[in-house]
Amino acid sequence: METLGDIRELEAIKRLTQKLGTNPYLRTGAGDDCAVAEVPGSGTDQVFTTDPVIENVHFLPSDEPYLIGSKAVGRVLSDIAAMGARPQWLLVNVVAPADQVFQALEEIYDGVTDLGKRFGATVIGGDLTKGPCLELHVFGTGTLPAGSALLRSGAKAGDHVFVTGPLGGSSKGKHLSFVPRVEEGIFLRETGLVNAMMDISDGLATDLRHILSQSGVGAILDAEAIPKNEKLANALYDGEDFELLLTVSPEHAAQLNFQWLEKFGEKLPMIGTVTEQKQVLQLRTADGTLRTLEERAFEHFMDMKQREE
Amino acid sequence: METLGDIRELEAIKRLTQKLGTNPYLRTGAGDDCAVAEVPGSGTDQVFTTDPVIENVHFLPSDEPYLIGSKAVGRVLSDIAAMGARPQWLLVNVVAPADQVFQALEEIYDGVTDLGKRFGATVIGGDLTKGPCLELHVFGTGTLPAGSALLRSGAKAGDHVFVTGPLGGSSKGKHLSFVPRVEEGIFLRETGLVNAMMDISDGLATDLRHILSQSGVGAILDAEAIPKNEKLANALYDGEDFELLLTVSPEHAAQLNFQWLEKFGEKLPMIGTVTEQKQVLQLRTADGTLRTLEERAFEHFMDMKQREE
Repeated sequence: METLGDIRELEAIKRLTQKLGTNPYLRTGAGDDCAVAEVPGSGTDQVFTTDPVIENVHFLPSDEPYLIGSKAVGRVLSDIAAMGARPQWLLVNVVAPADQVFQALEEIYDGVTDLGKRFGATVIGGDLTKGPCLELHVFGTGTLPAGSALLRSGAKAGDHVFVTGPLGGSSKGKHLSFVPRVEEGIFLRETGLVNAMMDISDGLATDLRHILSQSGVGAILDAEAIPKNEKLANALYDGEDFELLLTVSPEHAAQLNFQWLEKFGEKLPMIGTVTEQKQVLQLRTADGTLRTLEERAFEHFMDMKQREE
Repeated sequence: METLGDIRELEAIKRLTQKLGTNPYLRTGAGDDCAVAEVPGSGTDQVFTTDPVIENVHFLPSDEPYLIGSKAVGRVLSDIAAMGARPQWLLVNVVAPADQVFQALEEIYDGVTDLGKRFGATVIGGDLTKGPCLELHVFGTGTLPAGSALLRSGAKAGDHVFVTGPLGGSSKGKHLSFVPRVEEGIFLRETGLVNAMMDISDGLATDLRHILSQSGVGAILDAEAIPKNEKLANALYDGEDFELLLTVSPEHAAQLNFQWLEKFGEKLPMIGTVTEQKQVLQLRTADGTLRTLEERAFEHFMDMKQREE
C-alpha cells in the first residue's frame, strides 16, 4: 500500500486539499499562505493559517525553549504578513512528553506571547497534551480591508520580482530568531502597488514556483542581484528565510522602490522578472547565460543540515 | 526539576494560561470552551477553539480512520456548540509517520470534511507534517450575535442543572461517533433562557466543577435523575460524552422545557440544582442522603480503558 513516505509532501497536500469544501464567504481557500474569508458587514476580510513545529524536524531538543516558541509563532505571523494582513488572534496547541521540564514549557509560552504581542497578536487559547515528542501547533488569524489580500496568483508577465531581505543559511540560527515581515507586509499591501506576494519558507526557488504555477507565468532570477547570506545555492534552496517575495508591474516598480526607501531607509532588492513561459524558472548567471532551475523539495531543518555537511 | 508529568493537566494549563495576553476586543479568553472576540462593525462575535487528538491517547491505531477524522472535528464542533455559536471555519494540522498508509489519511480527511459540512463548517486550510505518531490538531471558529455567547461563568444559586442526553460509557465506541450538539447549542442560546453552558468532555463531575468555580457557586446532583448509558460512576466520571451541560433559573425552567419538548420531541433532563456553597459538588443518592463528590481528573481514553478493566 502507498504510504505517506512514498509521496512528496506537496503532492500529498495537493491530493488531500482536493477533499476540502467551498463556501460563499471564502475568497481564497487552501493553497496560499493563508485562507481568506469575508467578514460580512464589517468591510474587512479575515485570514487564517496554521503551522506546526516539531522536534527534530523544525527544531532540535537542544534549542532554547524561548526561541522554539518564537519560531512557532513567527512562522504563522510570516504567513499572515505574506497576505499583507494585520495579525490578530493566536491559539497554540502544545504536545509534550511527561518528562518535559515544566520550566521549559513556560519559556516556550513566553516566546510565543512575546513575539505575538510585538506584532499585535494576542494568544487567546490552545491546549496542552502529553505525546511522544515536543510539538507546537499555532493557529493564527489576521485582518485587512475587504478584497485587499495579496495572493500568489496575481503575478503578470513583465512584473519585477522583489525580495525584502537576504536569503539562505537560516539553519545557522536565523530560522529560530527571524523577524516576521509583518510591518513590511502591511506597508506593501497599503501601497496598492503589489501584484503578488508570499513568504519564503521553503526556499526562494521552491516558493517562487508557487507564484508561477498559481499565476500561470514563468520567471528569470538574476543570480547576481539576489541578496545572499551565504552561497547562491543556499539563497535558492535553503528554507525558513521568512522574507517576503513579491512581484510588481514595471510601471509601478520605481514608485514602490521610492516609497520603500523612504519608509525603511534602504533599497528593496529586485531579483528577477516575470516571463510568459508558464512555470519555467530560469537563472541568469554572472556571464549572462540562462539555465533552467530544477524542482527541488525543501524538507525542513534536516535537509539544511545535510546541505551543510 | 519539575516535569510536565509531575503536574496535573488542569494545573499545568492554568499556570501557562496566566502568561496569555489581553485585548480590548477579547470578551472571553482562555478558560471557557471557546475564546470569544468582538468583530467590530459586524454586530457579531466570533468564537475560537482548538483541540488535538493523538494516537493512543484519544484513539487507537486500530480505530477506523474515517471516525478518527470525525472525532477530531466533532470535539471542536462540540466546543463551538457549547457557546451557542454556529460553526464557520476549520483548519486541520495532521502529523503522521512516513509509513502511514496514504489511503487512511484520505479517509481521515473525509471524516473531517463530512462532519464539518453537516454542521455548516468549511475546512479552509491546515498542514501535513511527518512526525512520530498520528495526530490531528483541529482549529475552529464560530459566529453568534454580539454578546450572546453562553459562558461557564453565568450560573446562579437556585438554577436548575440540565443535560442534553445520557452520559457515560463513551469508551465503547461513542467517543468516536458522537454527534456534536450544534443544533441544540444554537437553539438553547436563541431561547435567551440559559445562564451558563459548557460541553461535557472530561466527565460530568469534572466539568460541572468548571461552571461552579467560574460562577462562584456549588451544586447538588440528583443521582436518580442523571440519564445514564451505564453505571452512575461512568455517568459522573467518563469523559467524552459531548452532551451539553447547562443551568437555567427556576422561573425559566418550565418555559425552556416546553420549548425543548416542542423542538426535539423529548424532555430535557434536569439533573440537579445550583447552590450557594462555593465549589461544593454534592450527590443526592436514591435514599435522599447527600455525599460530597471528590475531584477526580479525567485522563482521556486510557483512563476510561482502565475503569472498564
